[in-house]
Amino acid sequence: MQPKIVRYQSDSRLSRVVTHNGIVYLAGLTADNRGATMKAQTEEVLKKIDELLKLAGSDKSRLLSAMVYVSDMRLKSQMDEAWIEWVDSNNAPVRACVETRLGTADTLVEIMIVAAQ
Amino acid sequence: MQPKIVRYQSDSRLSRVVTHNGIVYLAGLTADNRGATMKAQTEEVLKKIDELLKLAGSDKSRLLSAMVYVSDMRLKSQMDEAWIEWVDSNNAPVRACVETRLGTADTLVEIMIVAAQ
Amino acid sequence: MQPKIVRYQSDSRLSRVVTHNGIVYLAGLTADNRGATMKAQTEEVLKKIDELLKLAGSDKSRLLSAMVYVSDMRLKSQMDEAWIEWVDSNNAPVRACVETRLGTADTLVEIMIVAAQ
Repeated sequence: MQPKIVRYQSDSRLSRVVTHNGIVYLAGLTADNRGATMKAQTEEVLKKIDELLKLAGSDKSRLLSAMVYVSDMRLKSQMDEAWIEWVDSNNAPVRACVETRLGTADTLVEIMIVAAQ
Repeated sequence: MQPKIVRYQSDSRLSRVVTHNGIVYLAGLTADNRGATMKAQTEEVLKKIDELLKLAGSDKSRLLSAMVYVSDMRLKSQMDEAWIEWVDSNNAPVRACVETRLGTADTLVEIMIVAAQ
Repeated sequence: MQPKIVRYQSDSRLSRVVTHNGIVYLAGLTADNRGATMKAQTEEVLKKIDELLKLAGSDKSRLLSAMVYVSDMRLKSQMDEAWIEWVDSNNAPVRACVETRLGTADTLVEIMIVAAQ
């Protein structure tokens, strides 16, 4: 029997969460508070990740992979500060971080997660 | 027994499709018609995705994750127009979209898909 | 029973390898020798990939997906030279390659791999 695909918080364009065969895929997440610093934007994104993982029956101790896009590599250390405070230090995922332009000029960070359920 | 890896449209450098354990991985796809607008290039890429998913026994109703690279974020709305016309509105994948330079200066969009078989 | 998550070479921020349900996720890998050319940096990254895949009970014949970030698309052909010499030509993964700024100004290439165990 094929594993079922479950989608959460979907609109006509994308889902914010998709689960399939024990894997949780999260959409690229950004902060709503775009006036905030890199650290504060990262904290907001990580809070969203917690909420979406919970929705899918997972949590941050089950992260597999994280892709981090920052708008300015000089601000990476601020992103890392928020990340290190948040991540389960015994269960860190693989990660890459690159600099790209994001959806709006004041979006400083976008994170895309794959986790186990 | 280990799930089998099947590769399609492979050359010595990359495969355009790989399947393993019920998952379909597609290569980053770009349009051949590089003189075309962002909307037309996106439409061409999405058509390629349909064809490659079919080859792997899947279709766009089974998308899990989409990574979209655009060469200019100001053209994202054109990409989104083509995307929304194409995507199965009841079965949208997670998605992220960032701005990067692509393989050639006139390549406006590249999309990389993970789907369920 | 849920598949087990195994993490290798972890610190408080990230793991360089995570395995789960027959899949190996590698962190985004860069060269330590940052004075080297694109080709030499790519060769160093690919050597690291070999070592990390071995740690996880896999090897380059079992690659599923490769995401390649280059700091300058004009140097992509050098990356490709090293890639083609290295990749198992009968078992090439799906791949995408985009240009982004990387962690330091002299980091020319970063590669993130998903493989089967």
